[in-house]
Amino acid sequence: MTLGIVGAGQLARMLLEDASALGVDCVVLAEFPDDGAAKACANVILGSPGDEAAMRSLVSACDVVTFDHELVDLALLARLEAEGAVIRPSPTSLVLAVDKAAMRRALADAGLPIPAFSIIAPEDEGDVAGFGTSQGWPIVIKAARGGYDGRGVFVAEDLPSARTIIADLHEQGITALLESMVPIRAELAALVARRPTGEVVSWPVVETAQLDGVCREVLVPGAIDPTTAAAAAALATEIAELSGVEGVMAVELFDTEDGLLINELAMRPHNSGHWTQDGSTTSQFENHLRAVLDLPLGDTGTTADAVASVNVFGGDSPRGAHEALSAALSVGGAHVHLYGKTDRPGRKLGHVNVVGHNGEEVRAVAWRAAAALGTPVPDELSEGVR
Amino acid sequence: MTLGIVGAGQLARMLLEDASALGVDCVVLAEFPDDGAAKACANVILGSPGDEAAMRSLVSACDVVTFDHELVDLALLARLEAEGAVIRPSPTSLVLAVDKAAMRRALADAGLPIPAFSIIAPEDEGDVAGFGTSQGWPIVIKAARGGYDGRGVFVAEDLPSARTIIADLHEQGITALLESMVPIRAELAALVARRPTGEVVSWPVVETAQLDGVCREVLVPGAIDPTTAAAAAALATEIAELSGVEGVMAVELFDTEDGLLINELAMRPHNSGHWTQDGSTTSQFENHLRAVLDLPLGDTGTTADAVASVNVFGGDSPRGAHEALSAALSVGGAHVHLYGKTDRPGRKLGHVNVVGHNGEEVRAVAWRAAAALGTPVPDELSEGVR
Repeated sequence: MTLGIVGAGQLARMLLEDASALGVDCVVLAEFPDDGAAKACANVILGSPGDEAAMRSLVSACDVVTFDHELVDLALLARLEAEGAVIRPSPTSLVLAVDKAAMRRALADAGLPIPAFSIIAPEDEGDVAGFGTSQGWPIVIKAARGGYDGRGVFVAEDLPSARTIIADLHEQGITALLESMVPIRAELAALVARRPTGEVVSWPVVETAQLDGVCREVLVPGAIDPTTAAAAAALATEIAELSGVEGVMAVELFDTEDGLLINELAMRPHNSGHWTQDGSTTSQFENHLRAVLDLPLGDTGTTADAVASVNVFGGDSPRGAHEALSAALSVGGAHVHLYGKTDRPGRKLGHVNVVGHNGEEVRAVAWRAAAALGTPVPDELSEGVR
Repeated sequence: MTLGIVGAGQLARMLLEDASALGVDCVVLAEFPDDGAAKACANVILGSPGDEAAMRSLVSACDVVTFDHELVDLALLARLEAEGAVIRPSPTSLVLAVDKAAMRRALADAGLPIPAFSIIAPEDEGDVAGFGTSQGWPIVIKAARGGYDGRGVFVAEDLPSARTIIADLHEQGITALLESMVPIRAELAALVARRPTGEVVSWPVVETAQLDGVCREVLVPGAIDPTTAAAAAALATEIAELSGVEGVMAVELFDTEDGLLINELAMRPHNSGHWTQDGSTTSQFENHLRAVLDLPLGDTGTTADAVASVNVFGGDSPRGAHEALSAALSVGGAHVHLYGKTDRPGRKLGHVNVVGHNGEEVRAVAWRAAAALGTPVPDELSEGVR
């Protein structure tokens, strides 16, 4: 079996690690030869996901094609699928992860809990004033396509600023998604995997801490009460079934006074699921491989009472790679995962997982190792860390 | 940091998996482009360990060079080291894993417990009759160099057959190592890792089952009593220190009526340590990487009460790879590790690890998954399995 992966970032790199263990050969489609997964893969095709010739090379070299990211050309994927390529998740599912407007419409049609929203395509004027008045300012405006890690997400304080943001998006041909600004008690993520047979498994729901739209830490189980966790897992399973996703899907949720609201979807392994590499019987990467290759899904139980996963970012004064890694590995119990990237301030370079009995302890240990690797500890998250 | 690996078999392949997580770039020296690790590595140099040009390419591309196997040219390695190459373990240590005669001499000089032995180099006649008479027939005869997985190990029932075996070895220029045939209660393996700083860590000692010199299953802790386990671990640590090994070292031991006897050494990750991938906080592969890169060694504790690791071999009627993998992955709790090899009868294709609370249960589950992958269950090991 040969698996093709569109994109060669860290998710592809970690898929390769588990693919090696399953004896699965892989080919990655990489933009650049020094992409994280390109540096760890025997078979690399250089090109972008929108490059038809490169995509055809990938498809013809592989039994199944899957994804590292959603910045893809759905029309091209649909053509390739119609010609017989096995693409998982299928572009008919993937649209819900690629296009936030399509996602909002589908979830609204299914009656699932989401923030109030309005979609304004470039050719439309929409009723921005009406939306702002009914929902109250500020509102959130998102690029329907192309955003990630907080990029493409804006907060508009008033009508003039909303009009400017929307005009900017429309100028780039991008549809604007307006959403009400929801008062959040906590951010959660629910991770599931679905096989073409329809089998769905779900991992325990996690609590995430995001700053400026970027995930900084993931706690399992965090401070989530069991009822909320069960509701979040049920929502994720329902979305997996209605979308027909094949592979791993992450659902980011807001926990609010009025219950859970669905924020974002990703149809691939997700930052909120990196803890599964060391804290679950089966990692999200292994189950993504199993799902897209139509193999039985693995046990998603935890291997410890508490798991923390903290992202590693480049700091202002990078130390040598060996010195930093040495300092991190001297932190007992820290499982270090690096992505093969050059250290630059603010760049996401890896993550650290720690498993144990006590949530506060594993969180503190994970931050200690992440800090040793150069990650600045944000004030908002420093409690109990230093 | 770039690590070179001499040899591209399954041990190199599994080193690559953990090297990816540590952000370490690797180059493998592969005999063939379809070697297991060559199919999973971005940087492959084709050549044999005795090919000076290939070895020089490897050394010049890497900060540190380590090994997948011991079929190496020690004189060439010593020259490269003298010129400044960082080779870990050093050829001065590695000789004890490459040359069984050198190993026996060193262990005897150190007063460590080993079977009675006699070394007969090609130019020597030796006293075969005297050795056989004093130790009793049959005796064991080993090729001092070049053997693995039971190859190069012979049992001579009487003097004429011993003379024939020795003459065959001498004709190939190979020294013969004569050993007394020891009545064995159990076979054990002790695994340690040593850093250039001198830091040594040891994993729990395991019980192995070997058939025809080939490892079939590894049980942690198996039926080893704690006193014997402690003695085995102490012997391994002592050998690590006297040899100055840098990296992982496995010591295979016989448990006999008269105590422990050292059988074989390997200075690299070892089949008896594959269980650490799923059953220890730090795998042997990660600690080998940490050791040869001079990084702090990781915790070697177990993550479960009982671990079983069963090797996967090609059966007489291979099923399709997808069908076999699907059957194995439907066995709950089975961690499947495959080496990317074509299925052929008798070929070692991978292993299955299972962790849990009960030794008999994890063993039965591991065998069930290995059998699903086509492994014939030997009669000698079938009790409690079917």
